[in-house]
Amino acid sequence: MRISELSEKTGVPIATIKYYLRSGLLHDGRLTAPRQAEYDDGHVAKLRLVRALLGSGGLSVAATGKVLQELDEPPESAHQLLGAAHRAVSSTQETEPQHPRADALLDAWGWQVDPADHDARSRLEQALRGLEDAGFEPPSDFLDMYGQAMRAIADRELDQVPLESSAEAMRYVVLGTVLIEPLLLALRRLAHQDASGRKFAEIAPES
Amino acid sequence: MRISELSEKTGVPIATIKYYLRSGLLHDGRLTAPRQAEYDDGHVAKLRLVRALLGSGGLSVAATGKVLQELDEPPESAHQLLGAAHRAVSSTQETEPQHPRADALLDAWGWQVDPADHDARSRLEQALRGLEDAGFEPPSDFLDMYGQAMRAIADRELDQVPLESSAEAMRYVVLGTVLIEPLLLALRRLAHQDASGRKFAEIAPES
Repeated sequence: MRISELSEKTGVPIATIKYYLRSGLLHDGRLTAPRQAEYDDGHVAKLRLVRALLGSGGLSVAATGKVLQELDEPPESAHQLLGAAHRAVSSTQETEPQHPRADALLDAWGWQVDPADHDARSRLEQALRGLEDAGFEPPSDFLDMYGQAMRAIADRELDQVPLESSAEAMRYVVLGTVLIEPLLLALRRLAHQDASGRKFAEIAPES
Repeated sequence: MRISELSEKTGVPIATIKYYLRSGLLHDGRLTAPRQAEYDDGHVAKLRLVRALLGSGGLSVAATGKVLQELDEPPESAHQLLGAAHRAVSSTQETEPQHPRADALLDAWGWQVDPADHDARSRLEQALRGLEDAGFEPPSDFLDMYGQAMRAIADRELDQVPLESSAEAMRYVVLGTVLIEPLLLALRRLAHQDASGRKFAEIAPES
């Protein structure tokens, strides 16, 4: 198909497609004439994926490029999957080699995490320090509840990883990280609204 | 205390404190001489909160200002709390008046959400469309699991809202939204690492 049809099929403007081609997020079409290229269903799928990563995933163009690259070069063993996936989706935020609050919590729970990956523990450390700074430290049974809820989710998710193909597995883990995160946060906010209606409506009825 | 002591006590550089004063994130100190101000524990607490919102909360300076303003003007009824809190923490992202995927899901679950608040449903819509675009639609029992997990968390959280004081309640809900979100995402990533070790280690032992 021509670029105009690719645009129509995906709803992505031609100028945007050209930008993705220039920045390497979308692979070139097959040249059929000096200034004319032919695109296929692979381009449709890739374009939708790029839009998802940039849009709902909230990634930058550079981060999206990194994710696409990792998806093209899946690691050899399932055990290396998460490391590669997390590297792909990690922002360029500063990681901290020291994360005492995070380590203490993970120790208390007996969670075994990748000792070489400081990114996730830095994020946890920052989150815990932010709560401390704000004078908003949740009681420890709340931290336990959050940990148990996320562990139950992660267990179910990893059971679904398609281990037959490392390319498919990588795709599953990367997209499951980038695209499910905004889903969970949106659901929590809506769950708050639902709970607020059930709990507070009788206390302060709508006027 | 002088600004130098305020800086020492909070670890925030003097230049940064001055920037927060200029941009209105931190209230002025009490003038004790034409070019000298005195700060108190209220400034220490506010400064830590600003750092938490900008840092782990990931808010912009403008968004932080909005959150602080909402915290100073809590709504009168508990039922209005969430609306005010969500407005405070909503980014300037475009909200969509139409969110058919989100509405269908919430209907199926019987969740009652604020019909005037399109922000959270727009986020859910974007997340669901992103998954669709990426060809990564979770099976419906997975969506149900995510919904149930977030609902259980939201229920526990709202039970803890201190209803005696609307200022305290507002603080609880706003900070619980901004500062718990990065905590949950970090915990999910670490839970994946822990689950990966338990599930995949035997399949592909570390070399």
